[in-house]
Parts: sequence; C-alpha cells; structure tokens
Amino acid sequence: MNTIAPAQLLSSLNWRYATKVFDPARAIPVETWAALEETLVLTPTSFGLQPYRFLDIRTPAVRAKLREHAWGQAQVTDAAHYVVFTARTEMTEADIDHLIARIAEVRSQPREASQGYREMMAGALLASGRKAHLPAWAAHQAYIALGELLTAAAILGVDACPMEGFDRAKFDEILDTQKDGYTCVVSAALGYRAAGDKYATIKKVRYPKAELVKVV
Amino acid sequence: MNTIAPAQLLSSLNWRYATKVFDPARAIPVETWAALEETLVLTPTSFGLQPYRFLDIRTPAVRAKLREHAWGQAQVTDAAHYVVFTARTEMTEADIDHLIARIAEVRSQPREASQGYREMMAGALLASGRKAHLPAWAAHQAYIALGELLTAAAILGVDACPMEGFDRAKFDEILDTQKDGYTCVVSAALGYRAAGDKYATIKKVRYPKAELVKVV
Repeated sequence: MNTIAPAQLLSSLNWRYATKVFDPARAIPVETWAALEETLVLTPTSFGLQPYRFLDIRTPAVRAKLREHAWGQAQVTDAAHYVVFTARTEMTEADIDHLIARIAEVRSQPREASQGYREMMAGALLASGRKAHLPAWAAHQAYIALGELLTAAAILGVDACPMEGFDRAKFDEILDTQKDGYTCVVSAALGYRAAGDKYATIKKVRYPKAELVKVV
Repeated sequence: MNTIAPAQLLSSLNWRYATKVFDPARAIPVETWAALEETLVLTPTSFGLQPYRFLDIRTPAVRAKLREHAWGQAQVTDAAHYVVFTARTEMTEADIDHLIARIAEVRSQPREASQGYREMMAGALLASGRKAHLPAWAAHQAYIALGELLTAAAILGVDACPMEGFDRAKFDEILDTQKDGYTCVVSAALGYRAAGDKYATIKKVRYPKAELVKVV
C-alpha cells in the first residue's frame, strides 16, 4: 500500500479550516465525492453496527428550509454538498440480526457462525439499563464518521465545515428521520472555498501540544 | 498543497482494520508519531474550544492496570501507543477565557477583539439548561479527534484499533482525570499488526452505500 509522508498529512491538515464561504459554482468531481461517500461507509464503529445514516441533501428547497434552522448559515445552501449525520435512537434485536445477516452475506458463512458474537452484542446493547445510553453511543459513532470525513476531505483537497449549530428537532421534522428511528446529530458542508473567504488566511488557534497531549 | 488520488485514500481505508494483535516489538517512527499527535491537536472543535486531553499512556505498569479494566484486551499493553481520550465534564467562564487568551496570543490581537465571540460562547455553553448537555458535547469533540486520528493513521500506514470497551469509572480512577475536570470517553491503540493477526485478512463488513448514504 502507498502511504504519504507525515509532512504531507500535516500540510493538508493545516490547509483545512472551517470554511465559511463556499464557491457555489464549483462542484466536487464525481470520483472524489464517491471516495468521500466511501469514507463514510468505511468508518469503524462499535461492534461494526453502523448505527447511522448520512443524508446527502441535494434538493435546493430542502437546503433552504434547513438553513432557516441553522442560524441562516450560508454553507447549508452554498456548499457543493451538505451532509446531515443521523444516528439511531434505539437498538433492537432487529438491528443486531441485520448485522449478522450482512456478515453472513459478505463472508459467505452461515449466520450460526456468528452466534457468539450475536450474544455478545445483545448483552452489551439490549441489557436493561443500557437503553438510556444507546442514543449517545450511536451519536458517538456518527462523530467518528465526521472526523474520518474531515481528514479524508483535507487530504483530497476538498474544503469542509463541520456544523453543530442547528435545531435538531426541526431538522428531524424536515427530514422525517424519526419514522425510521434516526435523529440528526451533526452536519458538514463540503465543496471549495470562495476566493474571498477571510477565514481562509487567519491563523489557526490550537492549544500547545504539551497542553493537549499528556504522556502518562 | 499536494493532494492524493481518491483511489489511494480508499486503498488506505480498506487496508486498515481494528487491529487485534499488535507487534509489541515494533515502534512508530518519531516523525510519524509526532504527525499523529499533531493530527489530534489540529482537530476542529465546536467554537474551537478543544474540550479534551489525550493521554499517551507509556508507563507499562499503568497500561497493565488499564488492561484489567478493558476486558483484558491485549492491545492495551502490546501496541506501540495507547491513547486515552478524555473530555471536559463541565465548562466554565475560565475555559472560555482560556481560549480567548490563546486567540489573542496566536493572532497577536487584544483580548477585547474577541468580546463578541466570548459572549456567543458564553450564551451557548453557560446558559442555564445547557449544563446537563456539556459532557456529551465535549465527548463528541473527542470522537471527532478519534475519527481524524484513525484516518490519519491509515494513510500513514500505521495500524490502529479504536476501543470503547473499558470501565470508564476505573479508568478515571487510575488516571486521576477527574481532579482536572476530565473523564475518559474512548481510547485507541496504535502501532503495527503482528504477522499472525487473523483479523487482518477477513473481509470487512459494511452495509451497502445505498443503505447508509441517502440522497435527499
């Protein structure tokens, strides 16, 4: 496998910033977007359960409605893509069986071969007392996907802006996510920065490494 | 800035897997590890508040103790690095002032220049009713860092295993995180796979893209 030099990674991560003004005329090439979608799909999750869905909002009227409930932020309508990350609000036996079926399909093995794994997941997720923690657990997996996507976009030279500032209840209503047992947790706009975005050139602010990374 | 081809990104993401058996004799080169630490530092966060700390556990005795409370998983002791992600348990005026001071320092501007930003953050984080949501909010930022780290590791050719399966209360106790207002939320082992890890070659299981990514 080809790898990149550490300096190239850092150059990409320093190039990225939370893009405020996107060029609304510039699309993401099809092959690049396909790789970013695949990055979302390949996200590692707890037990491999993938308790999320990613909504690629392409309908301009829907984008306009969402923007109203996201402090009017222009990225929602102007970026080439606007992705809403939704996570499961509960987990049931059916979710676990769905994964077991998929394992059997992908690995060409009988479902029974995953019986032990099935019981381990059921114990961890369906035990009484766990129910209240599941929405947070599912949201965490969606945030792993967000982190993966942001890094992947940077090394492909795609601009992005992670966005938490929106009314989740309103987003759920507009996107009708609850009917399938999902709720909106975070979002990201992706595309290319407009030439005039002043945030592109101001210095990135991070705490010193010694403050954030502690050797124990 | 140099970018990589979409195919190379996907090759790296397909190469990675949740490594079960690490080669305990193989260290991560200094420059590579420094880039991974810097990846953590460069993580984008809500308002730029960076409400986390990353603990790079190097002391073998501490690793051994943590392993006891992580289902005995060998990655905790055998990987070249074992990082515990901790997140703030509350947010105070002091957290906000700390960021304002850092912005002033990095951008060589007076603190007063960020007064509007300070008020926006205070309104979003310190308003009554927000307090109960802050631990979850802080944990989300740590999960973005985890996603960034996993992708960065893959493209640098470093193996990793994200690990949620540990006793958080025990980890907090062993690492004495609460005294500074942090709590352990997730962890990751990083290093290089051992030649015999059977999980390296079994097929990755993900749902089809059409099931996970919905166009709206």
